[in-house]
Amino acid sequence: MTPHATTSAAGDTIGVWLIGARGSVATTAVAGCAALAAQLLAPTGMVTETDAFTGSGLPALDSLVFGGHDTASTPLPKRAEELAAQGVLPPWLPAAVHSELAAADARIRPGGPVDGDSRAPEELIADFATDLRDFARRTGVARTVVVNVASTEPEPAPGTWPASSLYAAAALRAGCAFADFTPSTGLRHPQLAGAARVSGLPYAGRDGKTGQTLLRAVLGPMFAQRALAVRAWSGTNLLGGGDGAALADPAAARAKNAGKERVLADTLGTTPQGEVHIDDVPALGEWKTAWDHVAFDGFLGTRMVLQTIWQGCDSALAAPLVLDLARLLARAHEKGLSGPRPELGFYFKDPDGDESALTEQYAHLLAFAARLGHSR
Amino acid sequence: MTPHATTSAAGDTIGVWLIGARGSVATTAVAGCAALAAQLLAPTGMVTETDAFTGSGLPALDSLVFGGHDTASTPLPKRAEELAAQGVLPPWLPAAVHSELAAADARIRPGGPVDGDSRAPEELIADFATDLRDFARRTGVARTVVVNVASTEPEPAPGTWPASSLYAAAALRAGCAFADFTPSTGLRHPQLAGAARVSGLPYAGRDGKTGQTLLRAVLGPMFAQRALAVRAWSGTNLLGGGDGAALADPAAARAKNAGKERVLADTLGTTPQGEVHIDDVPALGEWKTAWDHVAFDGFLGTRMVLQTIWQGCDSALAAPLVLDLARLLARAHEKGLSGPRPELGFYFKDPDGDESALTEQYAHLLAFAARLGHSR
Amino acid sequence: MTPHATTSAAGDTIGVWLIGARGSVATTAVAGCAALAAQLLAPTGMVTETDAFTGSGLPALDSLVFGGHDTASTPLPKRAEELAAQGVLPPWLPAAVHSELAAADARIRPGGPVDGDSRAPEELIADFATDLRDFARRTGVARTVVVNVASTEPEPAPGTWPASSLYAAAALRAGCAFADFTPSTGLRHPQLAGAARVSGLPYAGRDGKTGQTLLRAVLGPMFAQRALAVRAWSGTNLLGGGDGAALADPAAARAKNAGKERVLADTLGTTPQGEVHIDDVPALGEWKTAWDHVAFDGFLGTRMVLQTIWQGCDSALAAPLVLDLARLLARAHEKGLSGPRPELGFYFKDPDGDESALTEQYAHLLAFAARLGHSR
Amino acid sequence: MTPHATTSAAGDTIGVWLIGARGSVATTAVAGCAALAAQLLAPTGMVTETDAFTGSGLPALDSLVFGGHDTASTPLPKRAEELAAQGVLPPWLPAAVHSELAAADARIRPGGPVDGDSRAPEELIADFATDLRDFARRTGVARTVVVNVASTEPEPAPGTWPASSLYAAAALRAGCAFADFTPSTGLRHPQLAGAARVSGLPYAGRDGKTGQTLLRAVLGPMFAQRALAVRAWSGTNLLGGGDGAALADPAAARAKNAGKERVLADTLGTTPQGEVHIDDVPALGEWKTAWDHVAFDGFLGTRMVLQTIWQGCDSALAAPLVLDLARLLARAHEKGLSGPRPELGFYFKDPDGDESALTEQYAHLLAFAARLGHSR
Repeated sequence: MTPHATTSAAGDTIGVWLIGARGSVATTAVAGCAALAAQLLAPTGMVTETDAFTGSGLPALDSLVFGGHDTASTPLPKRAEELAAQGVLPPWLPAAVHSELAAADARIRPGGPVDGDSRAPEELIADFATDLRDFARRTGVARTVVVNVASTEPEPAPGTWPASSLYAAAALRAGCAFADFTPSTGLRHPQLAGAARVSGLPYAGRDGKTGQTLLRAVLGPMFAQRALAVRAWSGTNLLGGGDGAALADPAAARAKNAGKERVLADTLGTTPQGEVHIDDVPALGEWKTAWDHVAFDGFLGTRMVLQTIWQGCDSALAAPLVLDLARLLARAHEKGLSGPRPELGFYFKDPDGDESALTEQYAHLLAFAARLGHSR
Repeated sequence: MTPHATTSAAGDTIGVWLIGARGSVATTAVAGCAALAAQLLAPTGMVTETDAFTGSGLPALDSLVFGGHDTASTPLPKRAEELAAQGVLPPWLPAAVHSELAAADARIRPGGPVDGDSRAPEELIADFATDLRDFARRTGVARTVVVNVASTEPEPAPGTWPASSLYAAAALRAGCAFADFTPSTGLRHPQLAGAARVSGLPYAGRDGKTGQTLLRAVLGPMFAQRALAVRAWSGTNLLGGGDGAALADPAAARAKNAGKERVLADTLGTTPQGEVHIDDVPALGEWKTAWDHVAFDGFLGTRMVLQTIWQGCDSALAAPLVLDLARLLARAHEKGLSGPRPELGFYFKDPDGDESALTEQYAHLLAFAARLGHSR
Repeated sequence: MTPHATTSAAGDTIGVWLIGARGSVATTAVAGCAALAAQLLAPTGMVTETDAFTGSGLPALDSLVFGGHDTASTPLPKRAEELAAQGVLPPWLPAAVHSELAAADARIRPGGPVDGDSRAPEELIADFATDLRDFARRTGVARTVVVNVASTEPEPAPGTWPASSLYAAAALRAGCAFADFTPSTGLRHPQLAGAARVSGLPYAGRDGKTGQTLLRAVLGPMFAQRALAVRAWSGTNLLGGGDGAALADPAAARAKNAGKERVLADTLGTTPQGEVHIDDVPALGEWKTAWDHVAFDGFLGTRMVLQTIWQGCDSALAAPLVLDLARLLARAHEKGLSGPRPELGFYFKDPDGDESALTEQYAHLLAFAARLGHSR
Repeated sequence: MTPHATTSAAGDTIGVWLIGARGSVATTAVAGCAALAAQLLAPTGMVTETDAFTGSGLPALDSLVFGGHDTASTPLPKRAEELAAQGVLPPWLPAAVHSELAAADARIRPGGPVDGDSRAPEELIADFATDLRDFARRTGVARTVVVNVASTEPEPAPGTWPASSLYAAAALRAGCAFADFTPSTGLRHPQLAGAARVSGLPYAGRDGKTGQTLLRAVLGPMFAQRALAVRAWSGTNLLGGGDGAALADPAAARAKNAGKERVLADTLGTTPQGEVHIDDVPALGEWKTAWDHVAFDGFLGTRMVLQTIWQGCDSALAAPLVLDLARLLARAHEKGLSGPRPELGFYFKDPDGDESALTEQYAHLLAFAARLGHSR
């Protein structure tokens, strides 16, 4: 496969504002977008670079301008080197896209709230919205999509404002489309429902589907279609990196697991026995391993077992989907589409729509791609 | 789940004639059909017992009358006891359905050709067709579906008639619908193409999709939909029972593997590296284990791996599909449908149609179910 | 392998008193011992039936007389039928050894304390000791070994007496050797240490090594011998049956996991990252699956992975070891050996001695076998 | 773990002459030895760097001088870069040890015979021996150990001289100790037996034990010690790199598999059912995956299964063992030990001695380490 990422010599630029902009997913997305725009690598893993999206009018990869919020301070070029040392990025890539990484890093603004921060939620929202408007003014982007790729938050106490929802509120206020790539509350905060509905903005979520749940979204339907009775579906995830540490907090894991279990209930029509574990294993670095054990009954009650082992790099699985979502939401915004976009359920563990089976979600995505392409 | 197999108090009976009628698959199908008809067990694994087929006008399970050809002589009640000892059938089942097994066994006719058989192919075809007509006359079935569930044959030398094709020719001659549940030549013999086309009979094949290939038919599309680049797909199958011994013959395995590889080429759009092994492991008895190792590239070329392990009972996986096919083809025959039925690709490794992805095959099957139900 | 279990026409009989005498392990041990004594099956899984133990003077299998305590009331013949339906026992076995099962069941005494039991610990110990003395008097056994195979208890609150320790105290008082096949407190209760030491009785524990830890006891030394640096060792156990339910209680699981982790720390010399999960999966019935994932560094820090999947039947793994321990402790008692027997560490997750590597434990066991055989 | 490889400021230097000196294993060994000698990395995977070998008088790592034969021409510094790109070596290592790699590369002599080579076997042996003597004279090493790490050869036709045996003969003639790290014929050529015996040189082989067979050497004994009856042991190896291509030749694979099967027969006492496959999967690059499936019977014949998946980097597994062997044989030579060294069976699939269980082999190795350390 030779590099053939979509590029454009002219036209509007589009802002991609990442919450958690110095994390592994964001770094991989920024570095990867630069590599593809420069045709240094093939766009493996990017669904919007496949033929079906050719006529959808999506913004070209070289028109994306990155910025974001983060509470961390390690600059993107250094983060890219760390990821290359772990095998997430090719060793030569950080140097090859250094200027793009440095430029994006210069647009990252301090996130919050941090310890000792005395700002009230309303002040934080206002400050974040100001950051977004400043970014748009300085870069001249035609519009901006905000994507939350920060670490998973614990479930918030009732009546409080988790950071993810402050960012989501700021996106609404600044007129930006929004994608929730994590299981955090974000736009699903009860006090944001009304504002989202009347915002005229498109949004999508929740929790990117990058491994175990991706598999479940194709295997669950298989069991259902074959009328095989799943008795128990058990899973263990071993995660290194920041995600493992965040999810070692049982409250954070609870948010994550709700999405994982939904796909089984939806596709099987019943909730099988079995638990899901998420373990923090720092030795795995940026890599993750997911083991699933499915005990099912066949004809006449015969007991059978399917096991799957998925060994992937979380950032490399997530980053192309983040770019896909940014492009799709930017185009949807341009086309005047607003509200939740269930057509993007293909990307999420806990999607806005009713469909949990991957193939059906893919069909909806392709229909959406066609719809985006119709002349204005 | 409580037993709720479809039954009917009156109406036509339908013949199901099994090639390899004393094998494990046939024994499980006959015993299982009797158990379901008597509502002793739930119809797990039978797709035609799900709601989508309620209005399709399929023959009821208690209207199926079994017979068949086999070169083996161990009677069905004894075979059922052997399978129960291996855990394929519930221990109490052989006694509970003894009379149905004995009745079916009495309708089994000697298969062939056996060593020393001097009959020419034409004579064998005529004899087999006579057996089929006698069966229909004696039992009074409205029509008969022939299903080949015999051991996989080696690829035949050019110009010869393998047994599977003799049986297929006899089915055509006797006016019976035909399903090829094995990778053997059967109806795909070049000298049968014309006769099949003009027979006015519906038929379907080839090679039941019961394990590794079933998984591949959902995982292949997943990789394609996510634009992940599969580099190598390797597999090993460990089979006990007669199937393992038959497929230890490299010539027989070749026929099997062609189907397995087709699903990858069709769904991925490329042929990945990797081999498929089929090992005879008698210690596994009626059980089989399939291990698959998929090496794929993600974003920016990051190397990742998926492995699957499928541990199933071959007979229990195959038998409900055999019953499904018999019912669907009988109804298609009744409705006047003829020729190859690509709508049944859901059941086969090497289907008649172009579609290899399971979900699309399932959609075609459901559409077929609806079509079968339209008023005559 | 033809049946060749040791039998003896005459001589002393030996009592085997099982705590949890109507559980799956106990039922399998009683039924299996009868089957081996009658030479109906080969003694697979019984270490004391291998050649190395021929001259050790162990009691013959047909000299073992079973009794025990249990709070459950389902009789052993019925429990055996349940286990046969699950494939733990051959289907024909319950009928073949019905009389032995019924005889053992008649010797089972009510365990305790049960809800509403007003007896103080001292009374319970006295009652249990009386049961043991009555058993010995009525059966005429030369001596009795008590083996705890009851469900794992939660860790007791300080200063309380868990049931396992009441039984252990009763064994000491009645002059019986004792084996702790579970991780429960049993003889390791702080107030029993003195009594055990001066009892003149041999005893051994703790927590039978039947699956995941058995593997770890050979794989841990392999990594150490090859100077490979284990970074993380993660494991998940899926258990059906009563054990799964008992260990779903985090307090009970804690006791179990302590033993599992000890073997790694002992054999690797460091404690790797990684957790151990024990999930209750009732659908698995009497079967268990253990998945282990070992992330290790090779030469120059290269990252590598070993994964193991162990699928076994817990009762069938445990029962022969219970018979081994009863025979070995009975003989040790006869030879006048007393106190903890670290030579039996081969059988335990959390052994009395210092050695955690299986091969060294096996060497100690063989030396013990030789010592037992020396003329008195 | 901090770097602590043994080094020495002064003393004899030792030659390590590698057959296949520009292959992945050789490159990793040379680069790794330089890295350890410079204390850049910890000596993970080197058994001779553990405490047990402190007093054995082994040559220090910085006293090893590398040379060798190869028919390939890509220089070692370039090969090291290729391996770093694959993650076999740390990315910074090739530059850090460039001078040592270049120096070793300059000492590599053309191997043979190559196509069109008209030299008779005797001439080739003489030429190779001259290369060895020249190497010793120019470098001033006190003695040289020859280690064959070239690709596995097909089994030679009777009466012919495979290249591996030409090199082995040259080693004998030049007075060099010899280690066969591959399954090729090497020193086991029938016409070399006499010369080897009277050479006064120590030697060891055959076929380094780096993955699947290493596991089998600890798991086989576990089943035996627990009296569990292994019914079938099946395995599939997926190899990229040159080794995969070489072993895709069935004749070469046959040599390899003989060693793999020996360990099971030796440790289990029987030969279980099951096959071993070696697949060439270029997409895996320098990595290999080995899946093993063990079907075994427990108590009363209950069927159980163990599966293992080993994912490693072949070169990183082999290289430290090559350094170990060179050091041990050099010291043995210095101590005047000659003939086959069964004490080194720990390193080989098909060892010179009778022992196949890893723990016993390790005990023999430790005893050998002690013996090497005794004052001269």
